[in-house]
Amino acid sequence: MKVISGGITKPQGFRAHGMWSGIKRSQKKDLSLVVSEVPATTASVYTQNSVVAAPITVCRRHGRNGRARAIIVNSGNANCFTGKQGYADAVRMAETCATALGIKATDVLVASTGIIGKPLPIDKITAALPELTAALSPAGGKAFAQGILTTDLVIKERTVRLTVGGKPVIIGGCAKGSGMIAPNMATMLGFITTDAAITGKMLKQALKEANEDSFNCISVDGCMSTNDMVTVLANGMAGNPVIDKPGKDYDAFRDALKDVCLDLAKKIVLDGEGATKFVTIHVKGTKTAKQAREIGLMVANSMLVKTAIYGSNPNWGRVAAAVGALGIKGIAEDSLNISFSSFKKKDVSITTTLQLGRAEATVYTSDLTHEYIRINTEYN
Amino acid sequence: MKVISGGITKPQGFRAHGMWSGIKRSQKKDLSLVVSEVPATTASVYTQNSVVAAPITVCRRHGRNGRARAIIVNSGNANCFTGKQGYADAVRMAETCATALGIKATDVLVASTGIIGKPLPIDKITAALPELTAALSPAGGKAFAQGILTTDLVIKERTVRLTVGGKPVIIGGCAKGSGMIAPNMATMLGFITTDAAITGKMLKQALKEANEDSFNCISVDGCMSTNDMVTVLANGMAGNPVIDKPGKDYDAFRDALKDVCLDLAKKIVLDGEGATKFVTIHVKGTKTAKQAREIGLMVANSMLVKTAIYGSNPNWGRVAAAVGALGIKGIAEDSLNISFSSFKKKDVSITTTLQLGRAEATVYTSDLTHEYIRINTEYN
Repeated sequence: MKVISGGITKPQGFRAHGMWSGIKRSQKKDLSLVVSEVPATTASVYTQNSVVAAPITVCRRHGRNGRARAIIVNSGNANCFTGKQGYADAVRMAETCATALGIKATDVLVASTGIIGKPLPIDKITAALPELTAALSPAGGKAFAQGILTTDLVIKERTVRLTVGGKPVIIGGCAKGSGMIAPNMATMLGFITTDAAITGKMLKQALKEANEDSFNCISVDGCMSTNDMVTVLANGMAGNPVIDKPGKDYDAFRDALKDVCLDLAKKIVLDGEGATKFVTIHVKGTKTAKQAREIGLMVANSMLVKTAIYGSNPNWGRVAAAVGALGIKGIAEDSLNISFSSFKKKDVSITTTLQLGRAEATVYTSDLTHEYIRINTEYN
Repeated sequence: MKVISGGITKPQGFRAHGMWSGIKRSQKKDLSLVVSEVPATTASVYTQNSVVAAPITVCRRHGRNGRARAIIVNSGNANCFTGKQGYADAVRMAETCATALGIKATDVLVASTGIIGKPLPIDKITAALPELTAALSPAGGKAFAQGILTTDLVIKERTVRLTVGGKPVIIGGCAKGSGMIAPNMATMLGFITTDAAITGKMLKQALKEANEDSFNCISVDGCMSTNDMVTVLANGMAGNPVIDKPGKDYDAFRDALKDVCLDLAKKIVLDGEGATKFVTIHVKGTKTAKQAREIGLMVANSMLVKTAIYGSNPNWGRVAAAVGALGIKGIAEDSLNISFSSFKKKDVSITTTLQLGRAEATVYTSDLTHEYIRINTEYN
């Protein structure tokens, strides 16, 4: 596996574009579209929040058959808490896009991010579709990545090449992280394309495994959005023998997908609101990886740990209290080892070793700073 | 039931004192003692953290028989992460105190709060005991309440009088809240005395019920300390018919105890680090009160909600996202009602109504402010 450049249009058969449709007052790009030349296998993971935005509901329905050809994304408006009209708008966004592309509406996935509780300016989106579809290009990955951002400071892309059954396969991804537009909440979106040939079942499994060790291992502020989603389109144009069962080919693909997801997840943390530090939390010696991840996220989400890191103070007491806060039996002062890397650098690492078992996990977070408070308190 | 003044020495048969023993460099009071003239029934609730400080371990052992006569508390040092020496020091603190009072060591409970990871200056404590015990007085409740503080800005006391079986009964309490001394974590301590006659079993039950609706319903920063404890001593000197079963007398006592606990809990939130707002979160229409409390604490601990409140912004989207974050089935946009009181005042109230059932709960929190970040980042 090799890291290359190119983003979501690097795999064969994908074209994309991103443009300003009039949603953002800043006149920055706010509408993105990626399309596969041929029908693609698709898999997605969505927010676990009970309260979900309209586009998530539409995606769950359109993605049910495991096939899709296009993803349309707007930024600047989350289409969340918008009631029946919001749902109708999300459906119309998919339908109008499908008509413009000459494909079925159920082959179009929809995502939104931005301000919540305000009607989606659907007319601006439909009016922009002719220009958006006309401009689709194999060089449009970067424009797509720009069009999905809210207050992110930088675009986030990752592309890798690997070999499956003797054929070169490419996976390209982009993401947006925790941006805040009053009165909005952080939303995490990830879009991944690949020319690998893989069955829906195995793609779903690969995304599940990759997501567990990447997007599910990061936390900026512990708050779960109503719009989070990560979606993969796999169009098979690489011509590799179809990955249809566990084995060497599946493992290679899954590992490459995990690399893309983890890199994008880390970039989201790095660009976290007000973040001045990138914190890696290793938890070792647990019964299961899930347990290690849960403990790691307790540490990552502890305001006391986050402020200590901001203050460059290696406060192991706060880490120990966070480790113990889940009330897991078998954790005690004398069976707990905590070590730190230098706190003076931008990259900080905390290793917690328990004596419960042999599993481990790594989670990533940022510090809690005055800038986070400022961003989330002040409204313009 | 009537609210009166007086604190923990207001009930019959309790004497207390608080003094500076040399632990705090500020020369503020750092050692407190309360003693009952006669053996008392006792009940306690402790932190659920897996990692606990030495005094908690000692209290669990000494409190096991449901009887105690004295509580000795030091502030300025938490005696936590202090290993075997820390445990030996906590035992010696109880033993020396018992000797000075002429009672059994197992009748003495011990609490500590302050800096962690540093050896308890046990010699300063034992050296101060003659002066401390000599100065015990029925007017010493306030000095006791002062001696348990760390960076709390004010003492926290609550006293109520009620009638049980025709006899006047008094319950007095004091508490300390979220104070921070580098590199320490917040600790919540509550000490309650009463002259009620009540069996250990019923006292335990009353404290459990009172605690659930008070100390368990507050959160300043969602971080659980290693030293938290709430303890009641009931010495029976009021001469009321012993409360030994559920019924009218038990209910009256439990309600009065709940009033004391809730008032102290609210005072802890009001004095929370950097707090500028007092936030009451009502959650209605849940299956159980526990579920309502869990949802309320998700809202209370959401950094996005807390910063919105600091910014005086009634951001219902952030509240809705926090309500949904537990992933409870049956919560959705159209079955969720959120209302706010005016956000411009110091007292803010948020009411969330669900359609899951008929239970409800109320939780209390403060906002997340620049001052919180400053207190927890800077070390002096």
